[in-house]
Amino acid sequence: MSSEQKKSSFRHRLHEIIYEADTNAGKVFDVVLLAAILASVLFVMLESVESFDTKYHTFLNIAEWIITILFTIEYILRLIAIKKPWKYVFSFYGIIDLLSTLPKYLSLIFVGTHHLAALRALRLLRVFRILKLARYIGASNRLLVALRASRAKIAVFLFFIVILCIILGTVMYMVEGEENGFTSIPRSVYWAIVTMTTVGYGDIAPHTPLGQLIASVIMILGYGIIAIPTGIVSSEMTKTVLDVNTQACPSCLKENHKDNAEFCYNCGSILNEE
Amino acid sequence: MSSEQKKSSFRHRLHEIIYEADTNAGKVFDVVLLAAILASVLFVMLESVESFDTKYHTFLNIAEWIITILFTIEYILRLIAIKKPWKYVFSFYGIIDLLSTLPKYLSLIFVGTHHLAALRALRLLRVFRILKLARYIGASNRLLVALRASRAKIAVFLFFIVILCIILGTVMYMVEGEENGFTSIPRSVYWAIVTMTTVGYGDIAPHTPLGQLIASVIMILGYGIIAIPTGIVSSEMTKTVLDVNTQACPSCLKENHKDNAEFCYNCGSILNEE
Amino acid sequence: MSSEQKKSSFRHRLHEIIYEADTNAGKVFDVVLLAAILASVLFVMLESVESFDTKYHTFLNIAEWIITILFTIEYILRLIAIKKPWKYVFSFYGIIDLLSTLPKYLSLIFVGTHHLAALRALRLLRVFRILKLARYIGASNRLLVALRASRAKIAVFLFFIVILCIILGTVMYMVEGEENGFTSIPRSVYWAIVTMTTVGYGDIAPHTPLGQLIASVIMILGYGIIAIPTGIVSSEMTKTVLDVNTQACPSCLKENHKDNAEFCYNCGSILNEE
Amino acid sequence: MSSEQKKSSFRHRLHEIIYEADTNAGKVFDVVLLAAILASVLFVMLESVESFDTKYHTFLNIAEWIITILFTIEYILRLIAIKKPWKYVFSFYGIIDLLSTLPKYLSLIFVGTHHLAALRALRLLRVFRILKLARYIGASNRLLVALRASRAKIAVFLFFIVILCIILGTVMYMVEGEENGFTSIPRSVYWAIVTMTTVGYGDIAPHTPLGQLIASVIMILGYGIIAIPTGIVSSEMTKTVLDVNTQACPSCLKENHKDNAEFCYNCGSILNEE
Repeated sequence: MSSEQKKSSFRHRLHEIIYEADTNAGKVFDVVLLAAILASVLFVMLESVESFDTKYHTFLNIAEWIITILFTIEYILRLIAIKKPWKYVFSFYGIIDLLSTLPKYLSLIFVGTHHLAALRALRLLRVFRILKLARYIGASNRLLVALRASRAKIAVFLFFIVILCIILGTVMYMVEGEENGFTSIPRSVYWAIVTMTTVGYGDIAPHTPLGQLIASVIMILGYGIIAIPTGIVSSEMTKTVLDVNTQACPSCLKENHKDNAEFCYNCGSILNEE
Repeated sequence: MSSEQKKSSFRHRLHEIIYEADTNAGKVFDVVLLAAILASVLFVMLESVESFDTKYHTFLNIAEWIITILFTIEYILRLIAIKKPWKYVFSFYGIIDLLSTLPKYLSLIFVGTHHLAALRALRLLRVFRILKLARYIGASNRLLVALRASRAKIAVFLFFIVILCIILGTVMYMVEGEENGFTSIPRSVYWAIVTMTTVGYGDIAPHTPLGQLIASVIMILGYGIIAIPTGIVSSEMTKTVLDVNTQACPSCLKENHKDNAEFCYNCGSILNEE
Repeated sequence: MSSEQKKSSFRHRLHEIIYEADTNAGKVFDVVLLAAILASVLFVMLESVESFDTKYHTFLNIAEWIITILFTIEYILRLIAIKKPWKYVFSFYGIIDLLSTLPKYLSLIFVGTHHLAALRALRLLRVFRILKLARYIGASNRLLVALRASRAKIAVFLFFIVILCIILGTVMYMVEGEENGFTSIPRSVYWAIVTMTTVGYGDIAPHTPLGQLIASVIMILGYGIIAIPTGIVSSEMTKTVLDVNTQACPSCLKENHKDNAEFCYNCGSILNEE
Repeated sequence: MSSEQKKSSFRHRLHEIIYEADTNAGKVFDVVLLAAILASVLFVMLESVESFDTKYHTFLNIAEWIITILFTIEYILRLIAIKKPWKYVFSFYGIIDLLSTLPKYLSLIFVGTHHLAALRALRLLRVFRILKLARYIGASNRLLVALRASRAKIAVFLFFIVILCIILGTVMYMVEGEENGFTSIPRSVYWAIVTMTTVGYGDIAPHTPLGQLIASVIMILGYGIIAIPTGIVSSEMTKTVLDVNTQACPSCLKENHKDNAEFCYNCGSILNEE
């Protein structure tokens, strides 16, 4: 076996362990990885709790450095294991993996940036790949199809909401004024969003009768308006669930066939099976 | 009549009274049981109200002990009345019945545990069995079918929400900082959940303009995102209501027949009736 | 014309004016009535505003008495105008009309009851009858059909929510304790409802980390659970909108025909037209 | 070329630039306009922030005057560019354009009115026309069709909500009284709306046990009632998405054909293509 072949075989074995979950070694690697991700997210969160940090600062710091170094090694191994490393680097998971590793190193130079390590939480999405949850991925894909279909409508909807909140916030700024907590238009717009979305912190609240009347209108509006995005997604999901697709008939171009239809409901031509 | 027969006949009679509601004795037993459950839940709740407890402490204590002893006797009778007691012990209602009875006894040993007796509220679910509300159970079952079908999608959705809240909570911790109430990452994540779900207590609220901008984005996100679980359940319920099932045709394997269809809409074969 | 005939003709004329809106006199009567109802609701509301009441107390009191006497006369005329007065007395509108008139008289005997006059707001529902808004009534009826169909499911759902809130409230009472505002189980159950329904006043809020963790779970639960009643109503409304009815075929008993179907989709028999 | 022809040609060229976006000049004009609108909204908002205004007052004032004058010129050019200026003046965009320009001039006479300039945010709706986002406009139109269809039902629903809140607010005013913050009926109605819509500021909150019980009922009611507008819009959207229309067959008058059906599903007659 030549050196070149050895290297190729080593890379193949590495690829099997890191990227696949069929072999025993691969499964062990994946479970250990998930545990490390969970632990690292937990450590970053606990470090920010003062009472915890003062007691266990050294332990948390060392633990985070160990995990960061392990993640770095994993990242390098992932680069070695595939033939086209750049494809991994610019993939969704590749970017997340890099973002999870960098903050700790950056914290040596810039103070405070190590909290960004909480971005590691995104690595938890790997659970879907690792557990080979085809069923869940299927569910997730269906969701994505319905969401993608309703993207344009929801964009229009959110655009209207923002404009409405700017208008209503300005009106409230003029009605309530600075003495009632509406100290500026941006702050009033913030209040309008808090109210319209039915969050209602109560840090700013109208005090004049007219302000309360307008607030009531905004609330009832927000209560009714929430029906719109819900209606959009519901109808798209219903379409998906009822298996109506947008495939066009090859001979008469009619759409909206059932997903498992074999013949066009309009002209009887045979439809292309996927 | 032999002693063995007597015992069997006694158990049969007991079973009729306790587990069924067809005889007069059975009906009386069920109504008394429901009243006792309602009273016991009320007593536990009232006991926790200080002004009430100081006045009627002895009364409440005695009343709870009487009910607990009655529940204990009922539990023992239930064990005697059926042939396979273990089946009852590990059934849904069996576990609830045990959990409703134990806390009062535990309170003799551990202080404070008797509040767990509020778990008795779960026994109220028995109302469905007792009142033989076939219609309501039917409704409940349909609900369960639709919920079971959307389980996977909703799990994926909630998983995303939690990860999103961890990320956004961390960002807000860095933006607002400890002086504005965001004292740690876990607390900021808690705030992100309070905001995303449109609950909005207001115990923690952003004070910096940038923080309020991010909060606005989270709120609008949460306002739009709620459309997703709603859409999921709506579409599944619509499927149930329109009686489309996922039964496959025995000869051509097509799915999505109407629930009461006799012939396949694709090849005309006779479908298996359930 | 005999006295008997005169009386009958007078009653007929009265019926036309009060109960119908086809004649000019009837239209004028209805418009005046609506204006009086609106004014009376406004007066009751303004009377409760102290700064307003101190200034205009005499005016408001006299205005309310005038309206109350007018409503009393109207009530008596309604009794005279129809042949079976008891039918009106126990009808929906009859009960509301009585409840709108009584409080002012009761206020002579019992202090404070005159605020109940705000029940007059219910009389505003008459606007549907008066304006002959067939389109709106149609809409309202469709709504009622869908709501009636989902009644059982929604009852089951609300029952679960209440039981869940009792359990979760008790748990939070034990976790947070009296020093954090959870002073009793009923109060904690109230908090659980405030949180589950995403209202979130913030008058009571968890302070311990464990309490905030449980609160987060309740919030996410409440955020997801709202999908259930929405899904129920959505699916029933979709059924109504798509005109699927529950009419059974007279020969094969299959249901779920389209509202305007003429032949059974199962056996081809002619369906009964409504 | 006569003077008349020159004028007409100039107007034609102007129309091309201002009202259309096919030529290069037209595209440049539109992009500059959008930028100016965005900047002007930003300036109005920043002017209301005190810390900002004290520093940059002169700059903001001049910037706003420049933009206002530019908008005025644009408005006049729009009037010149079309043959029937009144049609533009009374169109949706015409009114908005006027409302965006006037406040700054009015501020010379009346103090405080210049904040109304935030109405310029409405001009942002032009983005749909400018970017020729046919896809978005399509989405928006579909939304409008579904919303128009559910208008009557939602009006009935909101009417019920308002009446319900008046009744419940009055009841709470009598239960809680002025010492718990429910100082008047209008204020209590405001609280009922805040609670029913699940906003929950917490500026007013019930303190008596009975008040909290009623509040709990209102919250659960509001939590369940939100299903209604959502169900209405969902069902209408589903109808739109599934492409069922209300076109009637010319020979048998049956409705609910698919949007792209060519033959009546009932009698086989050819349907009118739109």
